[in-house]
Amino acid sequence: MAEKRRKSDVVIIGGVACGPKTAATLARRNTELSITVYQKEKDISYGSCGLPYFASGDIESFEALTRTSYGVSRSVDFFQKSKGFEVVTEAEVMAIDRNQKTITIKMLTTDETIIHEYESLVIATGADPVRPPFPCVESPKIRPFTRPADALSFRQLAETGQVGKAVIIGGGFIGCELAEAMGSLWGIETVLVEREKQLLPYILDPEMAAIAERELARQDVHVITGAAVEKIELDDKDNPVVSIAGHDPVTADYAFLCLGVRPNTALAKDCGLETGSTGGIIVDKSLKTSDPKIYAGGDCIESFNRITGAKCYIPMGSLANRHGRIIAENINDNPIEFPGVVGSFLVKMFDLNVGAAGLSEGAAQKAGLKVKSIWGSFGDKPDYYPESNVMTLKLVYDGESKRILGLQAAGTGDICRRVDVVSAMLQARATIDDLLDFEHGYAPPYAEALDPLHHLAAMAAAEENGYNFIGPGAILPNGGNIVWLDVRETAEVEAEPWPVSEGTKTVNIPLNDLRERLDELDKISDIRLVCKRGPRSYQAAVILRQAGFKEVRIIAGGYQAAEL
Amino acid sequence: MAEKRRKSDVVIIGGVACGPKTAATLARRNTELSITVYQKEKDISYGSCGLPYFASGDIESFEALTRTSYGVSRSVDFFQKSKGFEVVTEAEVMAIDRNQKTITIKMLTTDETIIHEYESLVIATGADPVRPPFPCVESPKIRPFTRPADALSFRQLAETGQVGKAVIIGGGFIGCELAEAMGSLWGIETVLVEREKQLLPYILDPEMAAIAERELARQDVHVITGAAVEKIELDDKDNPVVSIAGHDPVTADYAFLCLGVRPNTALAKDCGLETGSTGGIIVDKSLKTSDPKIYAGGDCIESFNRITGAKCYIPMGSLANRHGRIIAENINDNPIEFPGVVGSFLVKMFDLNVGAAGLSEGAAQKAGLKVKSIWGSFGDKPDYYPESNVMTLKLVYDGESKRILGLQAAGTGDICRRVDVVSAMLQARATIDDLLDFEHGYAPPYAEALDPLHHLAAMAAAEENGYNFIGPGAILPNGGNIVWLDVRETAEVEAEPWPVSEGTKTVNIPLNDLRERLDELDKISDIRLVCKRGPRSYQAAVILRQAGFKEVRIIAGGYQAAEL
Repeated sequence: MAEKRRKSDVVIIGGVACGPKTAATLARRNTELSITVYQKEKDISYGSCGLPYFASGDIESFEALTRTSYGVSRSVDFFQKSKGFEVVTEAEVMAIDRNQKTITIKMLTTDETIIHEYESLVIATGADPVRPPFPCVESPKIRPFTRPADALSFRQLAETGQVGKAVIIGGGFIGCELAEAMGSLWGIETVLVEREKQLLPYILDPEMAAIAERELARQDVHVITGAAVEKIELDDKDNPVVSIAGHDPVTADYAFLCLGVRPNTALAKDCGLETGSTGGIIVDKSLKTSDPKIYAGGDCIESFNRITGAKCYIPMGSLANRHGRIIAENINDNPIEFPGVVGSFLVKMFDLNVGAAGLSEGAAQKAGLKVKSIWGSFGDKPDYYPESNVMTLKLVYDGESKRILGLQAAGTGDICRRVDVVSAMLQARATIDDLLDFEHGYAPPYAEALDPLHHLAAMAAAEENGYNFIGPGAILPNGGNIVWLDVRETAEVEAEPWPVSEGTKTVNIPLNDLRERLDELDKISDIRLVCKRGPRSYQAAVILRQAGFKEVRIIAGGYQAAEL
Repeated sequence: MAEKRRKSDVVIIGGVACGPKTAATLARRNTELSITVYQKEKDISYGSCGLPYFASGDIESFEALTRTSYGVSRSVDFFQKSKGFEVVTEAEVMAIDRNQKTITIKMLTTDETIIHEYESLVIATGADPVRPPFPCVESPKIRPFTRPADALSFRQLAETGQVGKAVIIGGGFIGCELAEAMGSLWGIETVLVEREKQLLPYILDPEMAAIAERELARQDVHVITGAAVEKIELDDKDNPVVSIAGHDPVTADYAFLCLGVRPNTALAKDCGLETGSTGGIIVDKSLKTSDPKIYAGGDCIESFNRITGAKCYIPMGSLANRHGRIIAENINDNPIEFPGVVGSFLVKMFDLNVGAAGLSEGAAQKAGLKVKSIWGSFGDKPDYYPESNVMTLKLVYDGESKRILGLQAAGTGDICRRVDVVSAMLQARATIDDLLDFEHGYAPPYAEALDPLHHLAAMAAAEENGYNFIGPGAILPNGGNIVWLDVRETAEVEAEPWPVSEGTKTVNIPLNDLRERLDELDKISDIRLVCKRGPRSYQAAVILRQAGFKEVRIIAGGYQAAEL
């Protein structure tokens, strides 16, 4: 067997996101450096986050994910000639020798072995799909969805009409994106199974996830949550049969295993680099591993939360790109630091935009923070403007310091700018007061004079003044003197009655009549105020408090949030 | 004449934005207070920023601008019953007596006079249109565009087909919004005349304003800049004839006087309150005037820039609402401060979204800052995603401290979130490095893995490393050894050639071939690099610098920015 010896200043293992980004940045900073990137697969530098949209047919060809904006393929030749570094594909790195500062590569097409010496090594080995924790047969119709081959395989079957029904195991990002991909273009009957009691666990609080679940149901995706898959077998036509605890088995033409990913750390572990409790490679703020000559970035490292300082594992293409820049600067003797992860997310689910920045209420509680939250439903433009869309927002903050901890958003409206603003606020360690002072871009086609973020901050401030806003996640006392007081106009209530359980007392007094009709209410009542979005209930609470009512709760977000 | 004496804890002059917001917040905070708002006109609390969209027909009726989201009119009755304060309309405040702590009101329908004693007074008298600085006849067809009556008057004429051609004097926000209103719905032939050499002066730098001008021209709006109106007369059909220095006179069926607004400070001045050099009432950070019993907010006050500390006058509905909250809190003994104005703006001009946050380069230079800027053209989503739209962004920053000073944006893409993010960054006094660390919400339907803001920050950092990005506003040396080197693919260049003046040397070498074809270039050339958006030119500059070329300039934004 041929064995070749080579040497480069910088050797990089991994050619998808962090690897090429590191190499490209470094090659620009220091054109004298020799840089080699090894990639096990044939495909390099593809937009892996675009795979669901290739599967859905939104993106015509896989090649589109590998092309620059000007139509040139990001090939080995492109990187060498345009970017000034070498990429070697179909080259599996077998071992890292930290003493010799070499890596051993097996060329998959020629069986040749290369021993490559480095000055600096970068590990950007990405992540692998989590293996099913249940018995699962091998079949081309039962696949994860992480690599181009997975997407190509499904699309081929879908295009030839061989997938009438699909089952998705796992309701995280990829599972949710695939649910849309199945339904929106292919019209495939889809079942989505999630083990936790909600979609997008760890990212959204349950009441926000419920909005996403309702949208999927509206789009005819059958969502089963809180249900463990027990096994996947094949029926006599070789179609997957998914057994689910407490449910009828689901037979489909295709099963997606979207069980998440875990850092690919085999090489790092084998050479004695430290990994953390989250499974990722431990790096310092310069993204250096426990070996000062070896950096690591992208989906294979353990990160830390910028708000709590806690270790975390967040595989994201956007972070991988930022890691690449930071590693390149450090190798180039420009010591910059990675400041940690805020955690910003967006996911499109049919007509619904879903997103978050920072900590959910659940995550903040787990981190031991004195968490409070406020929830509301808003238009994204003035109501008089023809194209106003709605959205539900939940702001999470520290009840003592008033520091903002996170935002969750779901709706047909423009949630992106709100998620981004809160991400910037989190980066600046901003408080509720800072959010009140935020100066958003305003014009009727784009926003209201006061942004929903201002309203949320004002509601949080009102809580300090003794008002009690109830989000749908709150556990309310029941029975006793409960009265649901609906302060909407009577016509609104008739058109869209607020749903209450039988035997519950409900009263409709439009806000404008409330002062004059207070005698219809009993002051010892436990009053829950309902309107369309919340502002009228808040105003009604002012009136009731003035009149001496003690137990008054405002249903934040009102009917609209319950409907979304 | 009847004279009535009254007394309230808080009296507020002005019932559009700041006034009702102050009253509503205060009435919630302290239900014991008696609060009276006086408004000269009949209309109160209308969405004045929506008037152009009412004129355009996007909003069906004027009443829509006065209704709450649940369809109830914000009437005198509504404010009394729902919000808990009194509003008196068609009531002109004639004088403020600071010694007696009273104001004198003339009731316009009854001629009754009221002497109203206050504990605290709030002046929210708004702004009046600037009067034409040229001779201008009185005519119902020559009007400003600031009050509901202006919008109603125009719409009535437009709806009955009496406006075939309109002329707009003034290219600020309202002028630009009206240009859209005229063209998009009514199909009215429109001429827009601006005295300064660009649209939206003071807000956008000239090269950004040029993008807006090109869009208006594409939409058949005839824009005349750098042209002073000399007079407006009527022809024999009573139609306005606008004489413009250096241009043929324009005859139209309607003339809009959009010459800006100035603070309405007559009452304040008459009672001896101080006004500033910008014309607005001087207030401290609690929005208190020089009289400790009198607050002022909204379009009648002088504000200050949060970045430079300089005094400024910025009439904006969003600020007026924030002022209202701050005044209410201060009257209620919660001493919070107004932190100044960042300056965030959005304006829709047909298919173009235009916006800004913070200082333009021109404004920053005037403020004496060591200003640098970087400019680029970007997609708002990955190129592989079907609905990617383009936008041009200009980031302004301090060349020494690297502090961000402002952003300008124009394009069909989603500029709102970028304007909002930079506004939040300005609030936090963030630097270019902070922007590099910003964690935007990422998913292919909404964004690229690296946001345009990251690219701008990286370009600013590259300038520090000696790269030279040239925006369209830069004055370039001419003649000599100039070579325009187009590094796009040859097919791209043939389809969309980069326009150069005759006799200029141009060379097309696709980036991928550049290393091999360097001998076609002369090292003493003064090279200007062009591609579609900029990244290839940047990469080409790396290659040229490595090869020993000294004079290399990258045309930031490339062909796409020049085209937009």
